[in-house]
Amino acid sequence: MKQAAAAGTKERVRIKDGFWDAYAALVRDTVIPYQWEALNDRIADAEPSYAIRNFRIAAGQEQGEFGGMVFQDSDLAKWLEAVGYALGTHPDPELERIADEAIELVAAAQQEDGYLNTYFTIKESGKRWTNLYEAHELYCAGHMIEAAVAYYESTGKRRLLDVVSRFADHIDSVFGREEGQLRGYDGHQEIELALVKLYGATGERRYLDLAKFFIDERGAEPNFLVEECGRRDGVSHWTGRQQPIPSVRQMAYNQAHKPVREQDVAVGHAVRAVYMYTAMADLAGLTGDAELLESCRRLWANMTGKQMYITGGIGSTHHGEAFSFDYDLPNDTVYAETCASIGLIFFARRMLQLEPKSEYADVLERALYNNVIGSMSQDGKHYFYVNPLEVWPKASEGSPDRRHVKAVRQKWFGCSCCPPNVARLLCSLHDYVYTASAEDDVVYAHLFIGSEARFELKSGTAAFVQTSLLPWQGGTRFEWTEAPETAVSLALRVPSWCGGQALLKINGAESAYRTVDGYAVLTRVWAAGDVVEWEPRLEARLIAANPEIRADAGKAAIERGPLVYCLEEVDNGAPIASLSIDPDTELIPTFDAALPGGAVSLEAAGRRADLAGWDPDQPYRPLGQSPEPAAAELRAVPYFLWGNREPGEMAVWIRLSRV
Amino acid sequence: MKQAAAAGTKERVRIKDGFWDAYAALVRDTVIPYQWEALNDRIADAEPSYAIRNFRIAAGQEQGEFGGMVFQDSDLAKWLEAVGYALGTHPDPELERIADEAIELVAAAQQEDGYLNTYFTIKESGKRWTNLYEAHELYCAGHMIEAAVAYYESTGKRRLLDVVSRFADHIDSVFGREEGQLRGYDGHQEIELALVKLYGATGERRYLDLAKFFIDERGAEPNFLVEECGRRDGVSHWTGRQQPIPSVRQMAYNQAHKPVREQDVAVGHAVRAVYMYTAMADLAGLTGDAELLESCRRLWANMTGKQMYITGGIGSTHHGEAFSFDYDLPNDTVYAETCASIGLIFFARRMLQLEPKSEYADVLERALYNNVIGSMSQDGKHYFYVNPLEVWPKASEGSPDRRHVKAVRQKWFGCSCCPPNVARLLCSLHDYVYTASAEDDVVYAHLFIGSEARFELKSGTAAFVQTSLLPWQGGTRFEWTEAPETAVSLALRVPSWCGGQALLKINGAESAYRTVDGYAVLTRVWAAGDVVEWEPRLEARLIAANPEIRADAGKAAIERGPLVYCLEEVDNGAPIASLSIDPDTELIPTFDAALPGGAVSLEAAGRRADLAGWDPDQPYRPLGQSPEPAAAELRAVPYFLWGNREPGEMAVWIRLSRV
Repeated sequence: MKQAAAAGTKERVRIKDGFWDAYAALVRDTVIPYQWEALNDRIADAEPSYAIRNFRIAAGQEQGEFGGMVFQDSDLAKWLEAVGYALGTHPDPELERIADEAIELVAAAQQEDGYLNTYFTIKESGKRWTNLYEAHELYCAGHMIEAAVAYYESTGKRRLLDVVSRFADHIDSVFGREEGQLRGYDGHQEIELALVKLYGATGERRYLDLAKFFIDERGAEPNFLVEECGRRDGVSHWTGRQQPIPSVRQMAYNQAHKPVREQDVAVGHAVRAVYMYTAMADLAGLTGDAELLESCRRLWANMTGKQMYITGGIGSTHHGEAFSFDYDLPNDTVYAETCASIGLIFFARRMLQLEPKSEYADVLERALYNNVIGSMSQDGKHYFYVNPLEVWPKASEGSPDRRHVKAVRQKWFGCSCCPPNVARLLCSLHDYVYTASAEDDVVYAHLFIGSEARFELKSGTAAFVQTSLLPWQGGTRFEWTEAPETAVSLALRVPSWCGGQALLKINGAESAYRTVDGYAVLTRVWAAGDVVEWEPRLEARLIAANPEIRADAGKAAIERGPLVYCLEEVDNGAPIASLSIDPDTELIPTFDAALPGGAVSLEAAGRRADLAGWDPDQPYRPLGQSPEPAAAELRAVPYFLWGNREPGEMAVWIRLSRV
Repeated sequence: MKQAAAAGTKERVRIKDGFWDAYAALVRDTVIPYQWEALNDRIADAEPSYAIRNFRIAAGQEQGEFGGMVFQDSDLAKWLEAVGYALGTHPDPELERIADEAIELVAAAQQEDGYLNTYFTIKESGKRWTNLYEAHELYCAGHMIEAAVAYYESTGKRRLLDVVSRFADHIDSVFGREEGQLRGYDGHQEIELALVKLYGATGERRYLDLAKFFIDERGAEPNFLVEECGRRDGVSHWTGRQQPIPSVRQMAYNQAHKPVREQDVAVGHAVRAVYMYTAMADLAGLTGDAELLESCRRLWANMTGKQMYITGGIGSTHHGEAFSFDYDLPNDTVYAETCASIGLIFFARRMLQLEPKSEYADVLERALYNNVIGSMSQDGKHYFYVNPLEVWPKASEGSPDRRHVKAVRQKWFGCSCCPPNVARLLCSLHDYVYTASAEDDVVYAHLFIGSEARFELKSGTAAFVQTSLLPWQGGTRFEWTEAPETAVSLALRVPSWCGGQALLKINGAESAYRTVDGYAVLTRVWAAGDVVEWEPRLEARLIAANPEIRADAGKAAIERGPLVYCLEEVDNGAPIASLSIDPDTELIPTFDAALPGGAVSLEAAGRRADLAGWDPDQPYRPLGQSPEPAAAELRAVPYFLWGNREPGEMAVWIRLSRV
């Protein structure tokens, strides 16, 4: 099933959307070329990447030392993956030529036995597979595999696919349960989901089995990563010195503290977690593993129900870029790494494939429209790694506890996982709009993004064009261009943000519908020219957080459709914390062309604490000495746009003037 | 002047107070004996101190390795200092015998040339004075000097005074501006204020000059600490490895980034800062240095006006136990180290000596009644090092960002500076109640603590007995027991917490008074038997924070007299964040004998957010779906008592139900 779904996906959905086309164009026209410059160390004032140079040295084309992080190879891989997707929708011979050359470089760096990793080739030759815990060897392999699959599927070129297949075969010979094989797995999950993709592209079952091996071994006793540390006498890649051997419990950081089937709370490094959950969902579907599916459901429920920011961000603490514990969602010391939200989207997509329930798509949309696109500047050249919900620029400079929270998007990072991850997601967005079940003759529309879509169902071809005015206006239209002769279903998501109020018209006539798992399921014999109009109510609303989330107590956020809003200093003055919002305020939308790209801002009624009456040297005084806060007009802008004008304070959660 | 003030202080004020006697007794009967056991490594389940053992090894009485921190000697010193004060008020031959033995042990560990430090004697012989930046050599010297002065002044015994004088003479030979001398200073200030005390006790001017040398050299170019790191090739005491040579700017941690006279913002490690400011104020007074006084005023204004918690805590961040920046006072990631508040009290005391203004005493009282005594459990055996204003026990366990914030007081610490510091302060509390200016024939009453006091003024002896019902009831009474034959002044502080409303009666008759710098100055010819009744209004009030303090926006704290109050989970349920307080609530006091030691609790009207209506797996929902928060009765208890019953959440700042 998965294999069939993967092959040719790119040909079936093509995005044509007033909002998203600009992002895709930005990635193609700016991000991909800019990142290529970055990979080649040609960006002034940015930390060098060393990624291309490392491959040249490993290929014997240049002399020098390895540069950058131990996982630097993955940056080139993610770039190639993005290029693969981009070429699938927008042929570009010059870009393809550059990518082909880069692929030749990768091939040249591959070793005789199929091994491929510039760090261990250049710098620690002979130490292959001795530090899975820290050295990201299989992680880098996974990213190169993902790149190869994307590039093969869009261009039909097998060069990189053959390279990574040889590498995967080598990995398959090194890892396993036979005598002389390593019964282990990577410290940073990624290879697992990549091997599933490689299985999809090649049909080679052993890649699927290898993915399952890695997932099944993870967290089993005796703990491989702990024992591996012991074999190295605890010598750490990062410090170069002996460290205490970690306990099994500490392996929670790597989600290897117990078998994955026994895990029910999202713990540890957030990106590792969601990459693993993605592979678990893949395997649950492809192997029919009900126990694994149940684990996925439990982990999903915990993560999205108790550990997710309203922006779709995950990871509450900088320390280990990690989950902390249920309901702990501080807004200012937050992590909410861009890559983690991208991994959350991967996981959601897999769950939608397994069981189309709108809650998965609600979260997918939330992460996409807020945390993910908010991480990138409108020029495509600056990125947030950490995506805060509250920013005080002075704290980012002056408080060590919040130094990781940048108030301004940065150029390419030393550890630059996020920018190419954003690029590859935005270039493959067409994969996230729909899923289909050919067997059940149903197409699910999860996202409201303008697109041409074509699916081969059991009863025949279903094709339609979606047009959408989101996120600024509600209303989506599906016009059929081809339909089977018998009844098939179009299932439209009832997004959580419409409060259950969505209007349906079929060929101009208002129509009732039945809702199954959050989808309006429209089953009939469709004909080319049939028009479905779907209008979920798009109205700005104040949102409250569960009172268990201490950080948001007495506060409200603003949402309108899929967008979370925020207050910025440039519109509202500072301190933002001195403002409160009236719980019964109207939220008046205005389309403001002056906002970057044009956007709907919201006016709201609130109050502002008296600042003028305070002596700056007086920290405290009786409450009775303060006048009632004066009425104030607040202006909220979409969260994803924050930080694109003057730097300043920002907050998503706003104090309520009455609670 | 200073010398005169210091000599015999102990004989002039004797505390007899319903509230404070219990603390002094706790220190004498429990803390001092318990700490002695700790210093001797005889507390089960607590980390060993090694302090006594180190002295034995250094004295050649035992074989072994140095144990504990590089500054472990200071723990014994602080204990001896506390014992000194305790013996001054409560003779105890057995305790004195133990202390004398400990002093003999210290003397035995002193080297031929006067040098005294067990770490460098045992472990790094030959490396004396090569790592002032990190190794606390002069810091430990300072504490032993303070101990010697206290012990000498209470017992008249010179043994330890002679030891530290020899050590100070040795230091004086090592440091200075002559050829072959070190033109440097300690990484952790403390020696400066100690040398001033040694000058006071011995009259030897060279100790004062040496203190001035250390203060004057600090932060001068070229930077001594930076150059010293260079001479060690950056090898660090803490890591044992080469570290990058720090910049002058990084010396802000040690307040050595620029000359002290140019410093105007409190920066760096908070304890180091206030110990230094204390010595600066001492020197400003003793040397008539107006520039230094002006620096003290600026630093005081910044620290107490913009960087102090309402509990009198200072130090906003765990990283470096340090100040962060103006108005940055997070309640949950707070540091507010006990020792820092004690240092703040030292500084305030010196400023009161220089210029009696009630703001100094207001802060002194705030730190004493809240941060300092709150750090100790009611059994005297458990301590907070960090004194948070908001606690969520799960976060202390589950969030690395708040792991330093303990929800329960701990036994003796590995770095155990705080417990003996509390002990020495509480045993010398008599030094903080009054200051007098003999020249001006005035006695200032800064604190309202029952006590017998006697001062030699220019016109003669002034003696009276203060009785006080604080902190539970207002009202203080001063009965004269001896008075000069000419007019002298009793100046009574008008505490900030009375809102300028304080009733005065003299011999039963209500009386007007003039206020100078926050003191009601009563000048007349007093006679034995004269009674002054002084009743500052003691009424619970809601307190607001300056809106620049983001962390407290929309919240209020509760104060009653000198006490800050808090909400605890044991009284109010959890989450505490789900509660709000009505801005116009009455705050009804009740004396509750069931609280540890008996205390006044306060009832207030507030609201509690609906918890029952939330699905635990639902993080967010439209605000409109939540009912109005229900009315709730809140119960606040004194902050200093928190954590003495069941562990749970606690908060000082409470959301207002209307802002």
